[in-house]
Amino acid sequence: MRVDVVHNVTKLNDAMAQQIRETLREKRIFCLNLISSPGSGKTTILERTLDHLRDELRCAVIVGDLATSIDAYRMAEYAPTIQINTDGGCHLDAAMVSTALESLKLDELDVLFIENVGNLVCPVGFDLGQDVKVGILSVTEGEDKVAKYPRIWREASIVLLNKIDLAPFVFFNRTKFYADLEQVNALLPVIEMSATKGDGVSRFCDWILREREDRLAIRR
Amino acid sequence: MRVDVVHNVTKLNDAMAQQIRETLREKRIFCLNLISSPGSGKTTILERTLDHLRDELRCAVIVGDLATSIDAYRMAEYAPTIQINTDGGCHLDAAMVSTALESLKLDELDVLFIENVGNLVCPVGFDLGQDVKVGILSVTEGEDKVAKYPRIWREASIVLLNKIDLAPFVFFNRTKFYADLEQVNALLPVIEMSATKGDGVSRFCDWILREREDRLAIRR
Repeated sequence: MRVDVVHNVTKLNDAMAQQIRETLREKRIFCLNLISSPGSGKTTILERTLDHLRDELRCAVIVGDLATSIDAYRMAEYAPTIQINTDGGCHLDAAMVSTALESLKLDELDVLFIENVGNLVCPVGFDLGQDVKVGILSVTEGEDKVAKYPRIWREASIVLLNKIDLAPFVFFNRTKFYADLEQVNALLPVIEMSATKGDGVSRFCDWILREREDRLAIRR
Repeated sequence: MRVDVVHNVTKLNDAMAQQIRETLREKRIFCLNLISSPGSGKTTILERTLDHLRDELRCAVIVGDLATSIDAYRMAEYAPTIQINTDGGCHLDAAMVSTALESLKLDELDVLFIENVGNLVCPVGFDLGQDVKVGILSVTEGEDKVAKYPRIWREASIVLLNKIDLAPFVFFNRTKFYADLEQVNALLPVIEMSATKGDGVSRFCDWILREREDRLAIRR
């Protein structure tokens, strides 16, 4: 009984995500859905990335949080930002994104970043109409999070391994991280990053530019 | 419609949690439900705590994970451990705990630790029949997690602020952390901890001993 309902909720969500996907394709907007635990550095990564892309692409951000608008205020310095407060909800869904899109000028956009609620589990199951999911792990969380939370790494198109500057201070086993990741998703690219220091940000931006070009070429 | 179903699921869970609570009271077992993001250090904290309490109290652990038995193997060195694999589920519920209890010798137990799935959102909403919720935050996640994920700090009986040895290397604002926590839950005790170095573990164990005595006295 419960399973049926969950299934229906997902089906409704999928249909709405597909509509979002079609709208974004039509407007030639490349969309990334950023997923990680709380505190992995999503917001700082986005700030750096937006700053870096500023002259090349027109970006906007939809940011989801349970409460507060802390992240939106931080981001708004760099790009138009829409805050979604889920009021305790553990993930963004396509209906929330769809509503947020109404407040953005889609004709003036090249890239849309969606910063999901900090949660390595539930957001993975909800399609938001994105082109790619970006999975973020910080070294302070431990390399065992690859094996323990496999679904996000399976569905991601790229992994950002953040806070790499802290690796010497924590017991992060890099060999095990890469071995486990290869088991879950063999061809997944990884960018080692320190968002606070700026390392790896330009590599991520290059990846975004390339990936966006590739997808726009396919859509033609 | 969806709200109704969620409400019913919670109601069923609450009833089962109440049964667990009564069983544990009857057996004079003090039960702690540990909740945090992935990678905050729950497992290491538990290893240290179990090691420290070994001569004073008979402990057992129920550990929830989406996949793998990594944590259970780590814990089993110190105490009887039951692994629950949620198979992608984002939290433990009372039915899972109830089943796990069947595998434990309750007459030979003083303390039951439940290590929830790493998730700062969903586990908070599911009563497991515990006496207390323990909220864990690591300094590497950032002090803004108090304001952004308020419910866990509101419902916790104690906060462990872990990885305190890394505070000099990250931008953790201790003043803001304590100010925000006071807004959410003014009387909440905090133990600053470095589980890997062992700092703060004995204070946590003292708290467990005291809290357990207090609750057993009330139950009499």
